[in-house]
Amino acid sequence: MQRSYTLAEIAERLGLKLGDEADGSLPIYGVNTLEDAGPNELSFLSNPKYAPQLDTTRAGAVIVEPKQAGRVKNALLADNSYLAFARVLHLFAKPQGEFSGQSPLAFIHPDARLEEGVTVYPFAFIGPRTTVGAGSIIFPGCYIGEDCALGPGCLIYPNAVLMAGTKLGRGTIIQPGAVLGSDGFGFVPGEKGIEKIPQIGTVSLGENVEIGANTTVDRAALGSTVIGDGSKLDNLVQIGHNVRIGKFCLLAGQSGISGSTRLGDRVILAGQAGLSGHLKVGSGAVIGPQSGLARNVNDGEVLGGSPSMPRSEFLRSSVLIPRLPELHSRIRKLEKALEALASKEE
Amino acid sequence: MQRSYTLAEIAERLGLKLGDEADGSLPIYGVNTLEDAGPNELSFLSNPKYAPQLDTTRAGAVIVEPKQAGRVKNALLADNSYLAFARVLHLFAKPQGEFSGQSPLAFIHPDARLEEGVTVYPFAFIGPRTTVGAGSIIFPGCYIGEDCALGPGCLIYPNAVLMAGTKLGRGTIIQPGAVLGSDGFGFVPGEKGIEKIPQIGTVSLGENVEIGANTTVDRAALGSTVIGDGSKLDNLVQIGHNVRIGKFCLLAGQSGISGSTRLGDRVILAGQAGLSGHLKVGSGAVIGPQSGLARNVNDGEVLGGSPSMPRSEFLRSSVLIPRLPELHSRIRKLEKALEALASKEE
Amino acid sequence: MQRSYTLAEIAERLGLKLGDEADGSLPIYGVNTLEDAGPNELSFLSNPKYAPQLDTTRAGAVIVEPKQAGRVKNALLADNSYLAFARVLHLFAKPQGEFSGQSPLAFIHPDARLEEGVTVYPFAFIGPRTTVGAGSIIFPGCYIGEDCALGPGCLIYPNAVLMAGTKLGRGTIIQPGAVLGSDGFGFVPGEKGIEKIPQIGTVSLGENVEIGANTTVDRAALGSTVIGDGSKLDNLVQIGHNVRIGKFCLLAGQSGISGSTRLGDRVILAGQAGLSGHLKVGSGAVIGPQSGLARNVNDGEVLGGSPSMPRSEFLRSSVLIPRLPELHSRIRKLEKALEALASKEE
Repeated sequence: MQRSYTLAEIAERLGLKLGDEADGSLPIYGVNTLEDAGPNELSFLSNPKYAPQLDTTRAGAVIVEPKQAGRVKNALLADNSYLAFARVLHLFAKPQGEFSGQSPLAFIHPDARLEEGVTVYPFAFIGPRTTVGAGSIIFPGCYIGEDCALGPGCLIYPNAVLMAGTKLGRGTIIQPGAVLGSDGFGFVPGEKGIEKIPQIGTVSLGENVEIGANTTVDRAALGSTVIGDGSKLDNLVQIGHNVRIGKFCLLAGQSGISGSTRLGDRVILAGQAGLSGHLKVGSGAVIGPQSGLARNVNDGEVLGGSPSMPRSEFLRSSVLIPRLPELHSRIRKLEKALEALASKEE
Repeated sequence: MQRSYTLAEIAERLGLKLGDEADGSLPIYGVNTLEDAGPNELSFLSNPKYAPQLDTTRAGAVIVEPKQAGRVKNALLADNSYLAFARVLHLFAKPQGEFSGQSPLAFIHPDARLEEGVTVYPFAFIGPRTTVGAGSIIFPGCYIGEDCALGPGCLIYPNAVLMAGTKLGRGTIIQPGAVLGSDGFGFVPGEKGIEKIPQIGTVSLGENVEIGANTTVDRAALGSTVIGDGSKLDNLVQIGHNVRIGKFCLLAGQSGISGSTRLGDRVILAGQAGLSGHLKVGSGAVIGPQSGLARNVNDGEVLGGSPSMPRSEFLRSSVLIPRLPELHSRIRKLEKALEALASKEE
Repeated sequence: MQRSYTLAEIAERLGLKLGDEADGSLPIYGVNTLEDAGPNELSFLSNPKYAPQLDTTRAGAVIVEPKQAGRVKNALLADNSYLAFARVLHLFAKPQGEFSGQSPLAFIHPDARLEEGVTVYPFAFIGPRTTVGAGSIIFPGCYIGEDCALGPGCLIYPNAVLMAGTKLGRGTIIQPGAVLGSDGFGFVPGEKGIEKIPQIGTVSLGENVEIGANTTVDRAALGSTVIGDGSKLDNLVQIGHNVRIGKFCLLAGQSGISGSTRLGDRVILAGQAGLSGHLKVGSGAVIGPQSGLARNVNDGEVLGGSPSMPRSEFLRSSVLIPRLPELHSRIRKLEKALEALASKEE
């Protein structure tokens, strides 16, 4: 991969306009924050809070939105400077790993089917009847059980586990140590204590899904646990059996969803949020950090607190919690005053 | 494993009664929900809420409790239909993995002792003096350190880690990526900052225990961290050093127990519940979702909230939290009214 | 390693004083609690609460502080008995694993550079241009990507993952299954849904850091995610991209820190605490269990609750939460009484 570009090349590749005074021949070797960038690095301004840094930055060039164009000599103009910056990063990002081909130190079952250009690192295991789409990369220590189906362009980072029957759409990324298809937590009291309910379903992920490091997604009891196209899960997230997640949802670190709950599209769970089982959460809903959800949620609702409540209520009520001792003493004072008044009345 | 049965065969294997009008010769190829089952699938009704689905289901046969017997032609009668269904699932569940024998790509220390019929997949590591009971299966990428003892019939799923000295009873299941016997979190302030307290104990699990994916159980500082027979831990659960868990406990996803806390039997922790260290939790206690426990708990107590309180109190008080702004303004109003009254009095 | 010592040898090695009546020739084979220790085991008394056990313990010898010297025949005297005990444990602790050398079953890239006395177990992977310091031990199933730099004396336990460019200082310990350098959770809305922001930074850990089992530390978007010398992270902790943690911090199990938050030195996070992104937490601050932090914190502040508040406020206010129904009824009573009074007035 080419690792340096002129400013003009970057503009052309991303469809951005060069600022009027910009020197298109400037070589750019990397990207950095306004604070840390050097004279051959490209930076960006997105949050207007940081605009004063335009006066002090040593960055060789800066991606800005048109209204800031005049403030920077070597400007690249973008309507959405943050998005443009994200795309520039792809030019400079070095992919993980340098291996290609299929290592003789991997175990690839003879009945697995690997399409063109699949990379399999040492110590990866691929089971029978599993198919891996073109260009996918399986890192060391991954376990991909039997009857899995991976679309093209998937990245399965080290020590990820895909149990039997797991399906991944095109371009899906599994961060290290994530587990897909572990048994759901299903037990029933019997005469001999607690009996396991066999979990005979699977896990099915759409296209361009991303699963965070050490995140766990349980197989369904029956049918499938489903994560829709473009949804992104952070690290250490727990997804129970038979959960269904729509498209373009964002689940932050350490959030968890109990069995059979269903999320619409573009739902956001903040960090450490927890959802009970068998709920329906409408599209566009937002569940705040550490919020505990035990009821259905309408489209677009924004909730916080545990148990959860509308976020506006949460903000107003949570500031009163530290004031409870004061409220308590005001109640006592009122009681005494009223008693005094009442005794006077008599 | 046989994968289809007649209805009569299923009845016989599980000791269930065929309904009066049932066709015992009906071939059953699988199991499914009332909503999704087809004409050669068996379903079940447990929750009466779903009874109306008996009229619309396409299921070939249904496990019902005697009181619903008249509503289904091909009925299997069970006193506990959910338990019966769980057992039927065992007939149709396909175990993970198809390998048998001991892979030449595994590392099995010459001083390890494997009983009859043990399966060891490629890239598994088994250390010296470790014993593995008959019929146990060790999946790829597992690490089983020295001096471990696994009972018969254990399932150690991919990339699970059992550090030195870990003991597992008969039939215990370790889901992928779980870690048993990592060092407990023990440190002491010294002149050079923080010093590590060596953790020289071990982890000991009873029979029929199940440990969820990426769950972690720390070795004891001294002695053993213990999980009793039949207890089940969900994914991403954290068990601190020297914790002792009784029999038939259920710990839901992302719950955590700090060091040296002891649980009786049949204790339930809901998702994301957190227990402080050095507590005693009595048998049959239930700790609600996201509840934070910092005190001892009597047998059978049911707690919720953070800090935890009796669940009944939690239900009554938590509905008032969103109403704090209203309560606050009522207090202010009272104060003003009283002031007005008092000034009138003067 | 020698595994038994006379009491006099232990005193000498640790610079402790033998009690006046102590028998220095007593052979000590191990260490244990006062409750469980036998006649050839050494125990300790730190918490005065347990002092009565000095009368009943069967321990062969006990480490005590000078004020308790008279109560024990075979005493070892230490100003800080707990610290002394921690150090004694090092004499008896058996390190994990017995392998040495570099296994032919490992994959070590020819361009990796391993210093003297490095141990690499089977099924470990070490990428190109990575350096491993003298005496470090890499357990089975570890993945160490390209361009990593490990100081001397590191312990990388089974199935840990270090993605490209990760740096570890001298003596750092990575517990099993931990992941360093997974992609940060960075996404930006685009026309095609949600676009990934490439994460081109790295992870950098100081000396004597310890990372718990299945804990995850994301690589920075730009620059480095940093954990300072001597900081210790428990199991299942989540560290977001560009977080910076100072020296000698202690982060308990299942705590989490969102992107770009900075911790000073000696900060303590209790279990399941959660910190929002872009915060500054001063040195010596303490964040309580399950606390949710969404604001900056001064040096030495002690917080609890979610949202967090000063711990003293949290203690006073949280006891009032179960009493909210009572406070509510007292408000109603006041309202009625006042109404009655007011109507009388008229």
